[in-house]
Amino acid sequence: KGRYREFYQCDFDILGSNSVTADIEIATIIYKTVNALLGNDNFTIRLNNRAILNGLMTKLNLQDKTAHILRVIDKIYKETEEKIRLELSEKVQLSDEQIEEVMSFVKIKGTNQFIIESLEKMFEGNEIAINGINTLKDILSAVSAQNIPEKCYQIDLSIARGLDYYTGSVFETMLDQLPGIGSICSGGRYDNLAELYTSNKIPGVGASVGLDRLIAGLEELDLLKKELTTAQVMILTMDKNYRNEYFAMASSLRAAGINTEVYSDDKKLDKQMKYADRKGINLVIINGSQEFEQNKVKVKNMLTGESFDTISKDDFVEKISSILHSKDKE
Amino acid sequence: KGRYREFYQCDFDILGSNSVTADIEIATIIYKTVNALLGNDNFTIRLNNRAILNGLMTKLNLQDKTAHILRVIDKIYKETEEKIRLELSEKVQLSDEQIEEVMSFVKIKGTNQFIIESLEKMFEGNEIAINGINTLKDILSAVSAQNIPEKCYQIDLSIARGLDYYTGSVFETMLDQLPGIGSICSGGRYDNLAELYTSNKIPGVGASVGLDRLIAGLEELDLLKKELTTAQVMILTMDKNYRNEYFAMASSLRAAGINTEVYSDDKKLDKQMKYADRKGINLVIINGSQEFEQNKVKVKNMLTGESFDTISKDDFVEKISSILHSKDKE
Repeated sequence: KGRYREFYQCDFDILGSNSVTADIEIATIIYKTVNALLGNDNFTIRLNNRAILNGLMTKLNLQDKTAHILRVIDKIYKETEEKIRLELSEKVQLSDEQIEEVMSFVKIKGTNQFIIESLEKMFEGNEIAINGINTLKDILSAVSAQNIPEKCYQIDLSIARGLDYYTGSVFETMLDQLPGIGSICSGGRYDNLAELYTSNKIPGVGASVGLDRLIAGLEELDLLKKELTTAQVMILTMDKNYRNEYFAMASSLRAAGINTEVYSDDKKLDKQMKYADRKGINLVIINGSQEFEQNKVKVKNMLTGESFDTISKDDFVEKISSILHSKDKE
Repeated sequence: KGRYREFYQCDFDILGSNSVTADIEIATIIYKTVNALLGNDNFTIRLNNRAILNGLMTKLNLQDKTAHILRVIDKIYKETEEKIRLELSEKVQLSDEQIEEVMSFVKIKGTNQFIIESLEKMFEGNEIAINGINTLKDILSAVSAQNIPEKCYQIDLSIARGLDYYTGSVFETMLDQLPGIGSICSGGRYDNLAELYTSNKIPGVGASVGLDRLIAGLEELDLLKKELTTAQVMILTMDKNYRNEYFAMASSLRAAGINTEVYSDDKKLDKQMKYADRKGINLVIINGSQEFEQNKVKVKNMLTGESFDTISKDDFVEKISSILHSKDKE
């Protein structure tokens, strides 16, 4: 669902900074964005750091097999543990001991605090890995300083993402109720990516919201508000001879920021009213020759049935605006 | 320029209405949209109506050759008149008299008023054409009732657009200074289109903004505002030990709708200041250990050089908000 050959993504990136400050900013934006789109905290940003994985490879003396190993463990959510072990043994040619080390590493689960303590014990003296662990600690402490619930961030040592592409932090965002849909916002630090395109070394960190997947997810969770209309006022077309006046009124209302629809078909009044009602447009303007001759505007509130007959055409925009605002307050 | 194999367009359509009210609405939206995007009135919406062209074909007894003829005259801006005449004679097999009638029709130029009067004389008693002429009149009179400058609308009898697709009103929008870029917003009434897809007859009228072309045009006219940043405040990272505090402050400012950047690299203070200056960020927060210990926020106005040292951290968001608002008023 939500996986197409062509897809839309919204990216946010910070280029030119090596600092963990940039990683924190991206981790914060992921939370703020997904929270705003979902309207709740039912999602988890999985965090990891490639430096820890690299540290593990160094520790096991498997640097030359890094890419291959990461590609295998990246499948840990899709395959059985047995199959993963078999692949590490047969295809990557790891020893039983090495397989045990790799598997016990990716299977470290628990609170962020527990995982960090386990990692710190495991990688004492391993500078590469400690750098990655510190970045995780810095991110978690900075998001907590911003009062973002820590439950939305979970260290997950099995995510590697894009293998050769990322160099430090990696992020994946899962909807708690729809894990099957996959990550809806992913990214990480990619300090070597620019080198492929320019001779400059431009460090970068960023993430992308996968819009199609996200929308598929929001639909499935019934979180997509379907609005029938944004119109607040509809002008009934009672008399074709006054069409220009209807458009002039609409133009004045719109200039004041009031979303206005001119009923655009030649139908009877009750059909026009029913249409407004069905669309949830709350105010209708019912002006015929009589009202125009008296320089008046007749407004009906579709919710209360209340009619306002005596609005002068000279200040009808302000009057309608105040009726709309008083409704907001109710 | 701005012509790609894949392109983006924004559509607006009214479905289900036969009424000229809908045509007026679309003609109005074209003006309002292009005016808002350009920020000026240097564009012309060319109007025509297929019914008038159909009326001409009926008059000349050329109904069966309509599509072919329209395809030829649609090229009138790209080809010489000689070539057009030759094609009408050789390929469409029109008589000299018929060619004369067609050419004198598409070459009627002048004010909208003049063209309408010419058409009314030309098509007296031709019901099909009169219907089209009346629609043009209704649109022009309704846009003028909304105080939209008539100079932005020009009847142009040579535009046909999409030939078999449109049935009534047709619109094309040209940038006055860049006619070569082609129409940036086109459309019309397509009452038979839905029949191709459903058994229902659904009348419709609408138009599309060609985004790529429009953006190419705006760039060429130097009308695309290039903003360096939307940030109003930048928090300098003077001391890494206070990183969490910087993010907490940013979080409070952002929650109040103040766009805030945390400087994300480990650079010296003067480099950070220069960055803010170059980006046009007017307020910077310069907090070090001293300020945090005194529960203060130090703010510097990059424009005036003025410093505010004594802002209490408890209400710094309101204070900064009021500094920003007082700047707006200046």
